[in-house]
Amino acid sequence: MATGSHTDAIPEAGRFDGVVGVLGGLEALRALQAAGIRPRRSIELIAFTSEEPTRFGLGCIGSRVMSGVLDEAGLARLRDADGGTFEQARLGAGMTGAAMDARLAPGAYHAFLELHIEQGPELERQGLDIGVVTAIAAPATLRVELTGGGGHAGALLMPARHDPLVAAAAVIQEVDRAARGTGSTDTVGTVGLIRVEPGAVNSVPRRVVMEIDMRDTDLARRDALVDHVRAFARAQAERLGVGHSGEILNRDPPSVSGPAVVEAVEAACAEAGASNVRMVSRAYHDTVFMAQLCPTGMVFVPSRAGVSHRPDEFTSEEQIARGVAVLAGALTRLAQA
Amino acid sequence: MATGSHTDAIPEAGRFDGVVGVLGGLEALRALQAAGIRPRRSIELIAFTSEEPTRFGLGCIGSRVMSGVLDEAGLARLRDADGGTFEQARLGAGMTGAAMDARLAPGAYHAFLELHIEQGPELERQGLDIGVVTAIAAPATLRVELTGGGGHAGALLMPARHDPLVAAAAVIQEVDRAARGTGSTDTVGTVGLIRVEPGAVNSVPRRVVMEIDMRDTDLARRDALVDHVRAFARAQAERLGVGHSGEILNRDPPSVSGPAVVEAVEAACAEAGASNVRMVSRAYHDTVFMAQLCPTGMVFVPSRAGVSHRPDEFTSEEQIARGVAVLAGALTRLAQA
Repeated sequence: MATGSHTDAIPEAGRFDGVVGVLGGLEALRALQAAGIRPRRSIELIAFTSEEPTRFGLGCIGSRVMSGVLDEAGLARLRDADGGTFEQARLGAGMTGAAMDARLAPGAYHAFLELHIEQGPELERQGLDIGVVTAIAAPATLRVELTGGGGHAGALLMPARHDPLVAAAAVIQEVDRAARGTGSTDTVGTVGLIRVEPGAVNSVPRRVVMEIDMRDTDLARRDALVDHVRAFARAQAERLGVGHSGEILNRDPPSVSGPAVVEAVEAACAEAGASNVRMVSRAYHDTVFMAQLCPTGMVFVPSRAGVSHRPDEFTSEEQIARGVAVLAGALTRLAQA
Repeated sequence: MATGSHTDAIPEAGRFDGVVGVLGGLEALRALQAAGIRPRRSIELIAFTSEEPTRFGLGCIGSRVMSGVLDEAGLARLRDADGGTFEQARLGAGMTGAAMDARLAPGAYHAFLELHIEQGPELERQGLDIGVVTAIAAPATLRVELTGGGGHAGALLMPARHDPLVAAAAVIQEVDRAARGTGSTDTVGTVGLIRVEPGAVNSVPRRVVMEIDMRDTDLARRDALVDHVRAFARAQAERLGVGHSGEILNRDPPSVSGPAVVEAVEAACAEAGASNVRMVSRAYHDTVFMAQLCPTGMVFVPSRAGVSHRPDEFTSEEQIARGVAVLAGALTRLAQA
């Protein structure tokens, strides 16, 4: 048995995403100890790192390694913006042992349950305490690189230009248009990261790299969007005479919660008097990968105004305490089963 | 009398833009000394700094201050990306005295003549040695800032989004389209710099800042483009429900070379046996501002393949030597006049 979440964050983040599930997991275990509960199965607390893709362009590195989705060679290929490796960053942060020591075999845990903030507005809107996660939307990341000749913004006349940023602009608009047009509000598409080189006001861009995040609760619909955007970027590049490459950084399947875990969470809600609703997580979590090892589930607590990945992200102490009580109750049930 | 150019460069620049006019000016003065020429007027060599707008968002800071276009209050308002002032950067680079000591009164020089690489393909295409610059295109820079609510790229559904990068993408495309559509190839429009915050693949952008460079040899046409782009950005922001501000960082008039300077350069070309053509500079130079003080002119040498603002920018030693000979000849004529 295990619970936990991550402690890393994006730039200009809030203070709740991830951390609530690590400190909340610790508090749940302390509460079980204080109550004198001696579970049949041991319960471990996991603090993942690099859940956010900020530094290495790939999310959930900790849980990918633990679950065997990312192997030693794949980990060694990762580079940050300065060309540094994950191993250098890991050792620089004072971690010891080998990264691959974290890897577990399928079945190593009986279950994994993660407490997290919702990062969306549904619980607050419905006035509920707890979201019982039944599935996590399938995330994919496409990195598109566009390259042109560059040149001086004054001297290079318009007919001679092959501007990769103009091609990128068409892709940004198409991601938004196509994600809105699938017929389901479960589809989301975002260009959150774009780098322009040389990045000077008086230079025509020479190279543009952008990373495109696309998610859906339906795998086929998500993959159709990824394929469409990839083909659109290629066509734009050809139209404008700029170089193009499109690399899929990750393209993961959705995860479905274990029925026994969902039931344990709902029973714990009933016991704690916490109002609740089953919901789909449209954000990405370490639980997606832990589902390779064992049945999983997630407990969501409300996010004020649905805000996340912003400094004003907020969940009250009372709301977190209710989530911890539900987590402790569900862990107790699962550890005794 | 003065000659000179600048020594600063953009990121990932070549090695010729600016430097050729400083070292070439030095070489021209040495050649005059070596030849025993004692001109009637003294000839000064100026090495400008901050000609490129990279650090403070404003180009030609040195010549703006020298010519009185930028006053002490305007200089004090400038900030780099880290919030540092020009004064801090100037003192940090080991410069002494007061920045305003560089300011000169109109008429302080009899003439100013700048040697520079063409930064375009015309001289090479026509197989000529020297470009005799008769005018410099009028540059303007518009900074557009767009702001939205941001949020998590998975959890914030499409109908609830106000994505400033989608608005920015429309502006990038319109700058390109409008600059191509004025009916003159003298019009250029470029988005060379865009910053996205928070800049994480899994976050909807919250703030986008871009700087748009627009130039033309015709002031009215250039200003019409600036006004159009500014209005378009405002309309896009309103359409997408994102915040908007548009600030004109500079909007300078074109400069026209002094007839006597142009004639001196052409006479020096004839004397040196250098083939030449009159041309308009579409790139921005310190000469634009020196024109506030005295008659000016520029001597262009060829740029291989018209490439500039790139590491492969190149002009041969022979081509530079020919430019220096013409510069020396023209300075001699102007200094005796």
